[in-house]
Amino acid sequence: MSEQQHMRRQLTTDEYVQGVLRGDRAILGRAITLIESDAPRHATQAQELLQRVLPSTGRSIRVGITGVPGVGKSTLIETLGTRLCERGLRLAVLTVDPSSSLSHGSILGDKTRMERLSRMQNAFIRPSPTGGALGGVTRKTRESILICEAAGFEVILVETVGVGQSEIAVHAMTDCFVLLALAGAGDELQALKKGVVELADLIVITKADGPNRERVLNAKADYMRALRYLTPTTGNWRVPVLVSSAQTGEGIDQIWATIEEYRALAEATGTLLARRQVQTQQWFDALLMEALQRYLYANPQVSERLPQLRQAVVLGQIPVVRAVEEVLQFLQGPLPAFARVDQGDQ
Amino acid sequence: MSEQQHMRRQLTTDEYVQGVLRGDRAILGRAITLIESDAPRHATQAQELLQRVLPSTGRSIRVGITGVPGVGKSTLIETLGTRLCERGLRLAVLTVDPSSSLSHGSILGDKTRMERLSRMQNAFIRPSPTGGALGGVTRKTRESILICEAAGFEVILVETVGVGQSEIAVHAMTDCFVLLALAGAGDELQALKKGVVELADLIVITKADGPNRERVLNAKADYMRALRYLTPTTGNWRVPVLVSSAQTGEGIDQIWATIEEYRALAEATGTLLARRQVQTQQWFDALLMEALQRYLYANPQVSERLPQLRQAVVLGQIPVVRAVEEVLQFLQGPLPAFARVDQGDQ
Repeated sequence: MSEQQHMRRQLTTDEYVQGVLRGDRAILGRAITLIESDAPRHATQAQELLQRVLPSTGRSIRVGITGVPGVGKSTLIETLGTRLCERGLRLAVLTVDPSSSLSHGSILGDKTRMERLSRMQNAFIRPSPTGGALGGVTRKTRESILICEAAGFEVILVETVGVGQSEIAVHAMTDCFVLLALAGAGDELQALKKGVVELADLIVITKADGPNRERVLNAKADYMRALRYLTPTTGNWRVPVLVSSAQTGEGIDQIWATIEEYRALAEATGTLLARRQVQTQQWFDALLMEALQRYLYANPQVSERLPQLRQAVVLGQIPVVRAVEEVLQFLQGPLPAFARVDQGDQ
Repeated sequence: MSEQQHMRRQLTTDEYVQGVLRGDRAILGRAITLIESDAPRHATQAQELLQRVLPSTGRSIRVGITGVPGVGKSTLIETLGTRLCERGLRLAVLTVDPSSSLSHGSILGDKTRMERLSRMQNAFIRPSPTGGALGGVTRKTRESILICEAAGFEVILVETVGVGQSEIAVHAMTDCFVLLALAGAGDELQALKKGVVELADLIVITKADGPNRERVLNAKADYMRALRYLTPTTGNWRVPVLVSSAQTGEGIDQIWATIEEYRALAEATGTLLARRQVQTQQWFDALLMEALQRYLYANPQVSERLPQLRQAVVLGQIPVVRAVEEVLQFLQGPLPAFARVDQGDQ
C-alpha cells in the first residue's frame, strides 16, 4: 500500500504508537505529518501520540548542523550520513528552515539533493515543515526528533540554513552543534555573525581540496585565533576546528569521531543530561509565554488598544509602566498589584 | 529646610512636577525616592509625575559605564564628571547595582568615593536603588533618567558594576556604552565575558601610568585585534580603544570627545532615535511579559500546579505542549485554540 493510499484512512492513535515504535517508516512519516498539522483535532492526537511514545525517546545523539548557503551542508550530510548508515547506524535528517514556507514541496528538493543517502535503508530524510513562524517550525521539529527517537533512530541530524534565529533554535534542541564554514578572502570572519560561532561545539571548514586547500588551512588558523576570545559553552571542551572535503573524503570520519568524543565527554560529565534538561525547561517556559501572549491578544479590548499604547509609548507620550497597567486591566481574574511590576523577574 | 524636614510632609504631584521642572535638587531627590518606593500609593503618584514631565525628557546624552571592580569607574567618573561640570554641563550620575540590596546605605559610600564631584553645583549623584531584583532596579533607574532629564541634566552617566545581566540592562537604557578595562597578564581577554565587549561603543583601558603604561598599550592592541571579530552595533562606527589615566589626566578629554563624536554620528544617521525607540519598545514588551507572568502566577491553581508540571516536563514524563495546555486551562477568559501554539511568535 502506497503512502497515498494510506492517507485515505485515518489511523488510530494506537496504530500510530505501534507503527512508530516498530519503526514503520510510512507510519513515522504520517506521524510527523500529524505533528506538523495545524488542525486542532490533529494536534490533540499528536499530543496523545507524543505522550505515549515519550518513554522511548531521548536515546539518540542529536546533532545540529548549520552554515551559510553554499557551504556544502547537504553534501556533507550526504557523505557523513552514508558512512554512518553503512556502519549500521540508523539516521534521521530533519531540517529547520522558516523560509521554506515560501517554497512548498521541498520534500522532492531535499531527497534530490541527498539522493544517495535517501536510498539507504537506515536513513530517514524529512524536510522542514512548511508554513508558520520560526516558533512553530521549531516546535514541530523538536517533536519530530522525539518521534524519530521512538522509531529507533540513533542519530538525528538537524540541519538549518544560516539565517537569523534558526541557529539558536536548533542549538536549543541538539546535543552537539556543528558550524560549517567556508574559507574566504581573509576578512570574512568579521562578516560572520559571531553569535553563531559562539554556539558551535565543533567548527568544520569545508571544501579543503584542490587550490582551495591552502586557504582552508589559513581560515582554520584564523578561526582558532578567534575562538581564543570566546568562552566555551561546555567546560573542558576546547572547540576543535576541522577541515573537510566531500571530494577527497578528508575529515569526514574525523568529524564523526569528534562528535562522538564530545558526546562521550558530555555524557560522562553530566553536561549532556543538564543541557537537555535546560533545553526542555527553556522550551516549556518559551511555549508558556507564547501561549500567554496569545491569551492576552485573544482579548478583544487588548488587541484593539495594545497597538495604540505601544505607539504612544515609543513616541514618549505615555510612561511605559502606565501603558502596561492599562493593558493588564483588560484581563479578567485577580490583578497583580501594580507596584509589584518590579518584583517578578528573578 | 533640610531634606529630612521635607520628608515629613508629603508633596502633591503638582509640587513634584514644578520642583523637578525648575531643577530643585531636594525635590528631584524626593521624586526619585518616590519612584524607588514599592508602596502602591507611591507608585501611582510616581507614574502621574512621570506622565506629566514626559514632554521635558529625552534631551540628555545617556552614557553607560561598566567595568570590573577595581577598574576605576568611580575615579574616572569623578575626573570626567568634574571636567564636564567645570565646562558648565549639568551632570547626573546614576548606578545600577542589583547587589547593592545587600549593603543598604550606599549613598554615603557613593558620595564619599566621588567626593570632589559630589561638591559640584552642577552634579547630582544618586546611588543604586536598594532591594529588589534586577528588573526592579532597572525600571527605577530608567524612570530616574527621565526625571533627571526633566530636571535639566544634560549628561546622564549610568554606572554599573560588571556582573551578569546588569550591563545588558544599562546598555538598553543608554545612548553610548563605555567599557572600562584593565591591562592584564595577556590571557585576560579570554576571561572577559565577550558579550560585554560586544555591547561597547567605546573601550577605555585605565591606569595607563607609570610602569603599567606599557602593558596598557599592549592590551589596547589586543582589544583592537579582538574587535575585528565582532560586528559593530552601530553601522559606520568602528569601536575605538582609548587609554586613560586618572593620575596623569591622559585620555580623559579624549573620552568625552569620542562620546560626543559617537553621539553626533548616531544623531545624524538617525541611529540614536532608532536605538531609543527600540529600547522603549523592548522595555514595554519586557514589562508587559513580566506583568503577564505575574498575572498567571497570581492564579492559585497555576501556582500550585506549575512547579509539578515543570518538573514532569523536565523529567520527560509529559510533553511540553500538553503541560502548557494544562496551565492555560486555569485562566479565565477566552482560551486560545491549542493548535495555534505555533502561530504567535512572529
